[in-house]
Amino acid sequence: MTADSRLIRWERRTELPLALASLAFLAGYAVHVLATGLPDTWRDLSLSVLFAAWALFAVDYAVRWRLSGQGPRFVRQHWLDTLVVLLPLLRPLRIVRLYEAVLRRRGEPRLSLHARVIVYAGVSTLLLGFAGALAVYDQERGAPGTEMHTFGDAVWWACSTLSTVGYGDVTPVTPMGRFIAVGLMACGLALLGAVTGSFSSWLIQIFSGEDERAGAPGTGAGDGTGPPES
Amino acid sequence: MTADSRLIRWERRTELPLALASLAFLAGYAVHVLATGLPDTWRDLSLSVLFAAWALFAVDYAVRWRLSGQGPRFVRQHWLDTLVVLLPLLRPLRIVRLYEAVLRRRGEPRLSLHARVIVYAGVSTLLLGFAGALAVYDQERGAPGTEMHTFGDAVWWACSTLSTVGYGDVTPVTPMGRFIAVGLMACGLALLGAVTGSFSSWLIQIFSGEDERAGAPGTGAGDGTGPPES
Amino acid sequence: MTADSRLIRWERRTELPLALASLAFLAGYAVHVLATGLPDTWRDLSLSVLFAAWALFAVDYAVRWRLSGQGPRFVRQHWLDTLVVLLPLLRPLRIVRLYEAVLRRRGEPRLSLHARVIVYAGVSTLLLGFAGALAVYDQERGAPGTEMHTFGDAVWWACSTLSTVGYGDVTPVTPMGRFIAVGLMACGLALLGAVTGSFSSWLIQIFSGEDERAGAPGTGAGDGTGPPES
Amino acid sequence: MTADSRLIRWERRTELPLALASLAFLAGYAVHVLATGLPDTWRDLSLSVLFAAWALFAVDYAVRWRLSGQGPRFVRQHWLDTLVVLLPLLRPLRIVRLYEAVLRRRGEPRLSLHARVIVYAGVSTLLLGFAGALAVYDQERGAPGTEMHTFGDAVWWACSTLSTVGYGDVTPVTPMGRFIAVGLMACGLALLGAVTGSFSSWLIQIFSGEDERAGAPGTGAGDGTGPPES
Repeated sequence: MTADSRLIRWERRTELPLALASLAFLAGYAVHVLATGLPDTWRDLSLSVLFAAWALFAVDYAVRWRLSGQGPRFVRQHWLDTLVVLLPLLRPLRIVRLYEAVLRRRGEPRLSLHARVIVYAGVSTLLLGFAGALAVYDQERGAPGTEMHTFGDAVWWACSTLSTVGYGDVTPVTPMGRFIAVGLMACGLALLGAVTGSFSSWLIQIFSGEDERAGAPGTGAGDGTGPPES
Repeated sequence: MTADSRLIRWERRTELPLALASLAFLAGYAVHVLATGLPDTWRDLSLSVLFAAWALFAVDYAVRWRLSGQGPRFVRQHWLDTLVVLLPLLRPLRIVRLYEAVLRRRGEPRLSLHARVIVYAGVSTLLLGFAGALAVYDQERGAPGTEMHTFGDAVWWACSTLSTVGYGDVTPVTPMGRFIAVGLMACGLALLGAVTGSFSSWLIQIFSGEDERAGAPGTGAGDGTGPPES
Repeated sequence: MTADSRLIRWERRTELPLALASLAFLAGYAVHVLATGLPDTWRDLSLSVLFAAWALFAVDYAVRWRLSGQGPRFVRQHWLDTLVVLLPLLRPLRIVRLYEAVLRRRGEPRLSLHARVIVYAGVSTLLLGFAGALAVYDQERGAPGTEMHTFGDAVWWACSTLSTVGYGDVTPVTPMGRFIAVGLMACGLALLGAVTGSFSSWLIQIFSGEDERAGAPGTGAGDGTGPPES
Repeated sequence: MTADSRLIRWERRTELPLALASLAFLAGYAVHVLATGLPDTWRDLSLSVLFAAWALFAVDYAVRWRLSGQGPRFVRQHWLDTLVVLLPLLRPLRIVRLYEAVLRRRGEPRLSLHARVIVYAGVSTLLLGFAGALAVYDQERGAPGTEMHTFGDAVWWACSTLSTVGYGDVTPVTPMGRFIAVGLMACGLALLGAVTGSFSSWLIQIFSGEDERAGAPGTGAGDGTGPPES
């Protein structure tokens, strides 16, 4: 219990700095990839930011492992964290936690579960799509036969992939670019699952609500299961 | 409560005029985009219709804000309305409310929830797809390297996008066209979620019905959860 | 009630003949579209079969309307039947009813709901995909700039559309072909919804089963909610 | 009952050898397809491995049929097994059973249902995608007009098909390749259904949990329905 509470305190304290480090990592990577015209000093600086943020993530992972007192099981149980330390481009995902923390602090009611799932899925998709577009653009730029001439093309490709539309007017041609693309496809599937699952459970919730109201009239008012205000 | 009831009365009274204004807005935009051969008078007229409808939406928004007595919170709580005032092409969405109102007035039983969700999703998709095709066609027409030569091509592209099929034989090439396209992709995801979620919750409802019937035989007749008549 | 029972008796008696007529219609249409090398006698014969089947559908529709004693409401309540009379290519869909009837007569237990939904969706998709491929091939064949050279191409296109994959290597280019294609896309969405919804409700059913078993151990055996045998 | 228990004992004993035979089959097929530069001895060897594994599957099927004491009904009830004997490339699917068996033996708690579904779907997709890419590459290689020049292209195509993205930059052009591709599309649909269904039922489960907690506060802690650790 004490270990748990110390872990929770650590997570609460490091939440904001780590979220900022995530954004710094993403920004550093974006500068590194996109700012090809900048002098070398800038690119070196962006690289330092990148590695500094990475180091922070590793330190955080190590401290949390220590505090959990779990041994090797920690690696498997927190596989998403492990993955994030290895592939820090996935790190921005954790920013969604910050959003929740901000909501909590301002004393507002937490969003309903469905809205939360949609917001999480949306923000994660936005960040992962941006990171994926950067990574793929970094690989594809200058490859022979590529249609991905500008970063705009890469973003357009990422959008059509994440929505599983897949026009195919712009596609990665390098092995590494395609490897990253497969990861984005998996994200697209998950996004679809989140959107669909939310809809489905929202409908089911309304139904149960209606059934209960039919059974016991006059109790269903203000239960917050109605369609969202528009 | 009084504010609420006044708000409801306002919404009921403005329902029909605003729905007509929505259609007028869409028609005006369609004329503006498609009728390139018409004399300038017609295009000016369609523009006036456009702005008049827009003004109506803004007035309605202001009155409802006032009646709600909510202050700045209103903007966030009615974010869909706010968005619609900023991007009136999304306005036709509200016509689905009219459909419900018509049903209610004619004293007919309201459609079952699943049918309603499907009808809403269908009508919204139709209207948004039409508006999206118009907006993208407006951007793409005459762009170098585009495959979108006629408005028919734009509609075909919109359909393949909304169903997340995404052939890619016709795709937007301008930055603005692609930006709108990303919005349509999001609509496609939502449509998929609505269709899938309805199916899912319909099946679950039938199941619970069957379980109850198995437990208490003879009570399940005429509960309206069976498959739709064909 | 008497009207109802006579309607049911009529439907039971006409089930098999109408299903055969559906297959005859589809076969006649296939011969009409594909057998371009046959002498005119054959094409005339296939046309006669087509119209004879169509006439049968119309007669069945009229009789059922009469027996229902419903007046104009019948048209809207049985909108799928109405649509089928207007667009008989959708008629083969009703064959899924025959399948159920056969199962019932042989005294076998009816398939579980999920299996039934999957089988229905599969058979409907197969028949509609075949009909859609025929109709689109009929439109596209010989159109300038088409990639749909053989009926095999049309079937391949229909498959990639129904699964919402949408490669885009073969796409319709004529307005009519694209119109039919949009219908197939809608079928693809519905198929996706059926598959997803079945999975979802199957998982939920297992869950409730597990919860009940945890609460009252020893009662859950043999409830038929386990994963399908393999 | 005795037949059942003998069947179960047989299945438990043959689990590991058959899983290894499945991998041997897949490996043999991969060598047969990809190792075109190897001397004939190697290719003959891989073919022998292929047929030996196939024979094992057939023997296992026959023994299980015998032990079940079911007669012809067995073929239909175990249709997936029947299909696997006819199309052994689908056999690797059964390896997901091994994974579960391993978990059980090590005395660990079984994964939650949702995690299990996701893992099953993921592993099945991986294996089927690999087998499908091999089979399609075998057909397409050297076909006139194909874009599938390397096995990497085939894997890339399989990924874009299984996620229902469908870029269409690489597509099969031979009839047999397209036939296999349709099978992969169906797998993609099922994968989508599994992911979406898991999300959906997970959300619904959380909801019921929250409802119960609201009704009887203080009972909901540690019920394991919270979001997965990250």
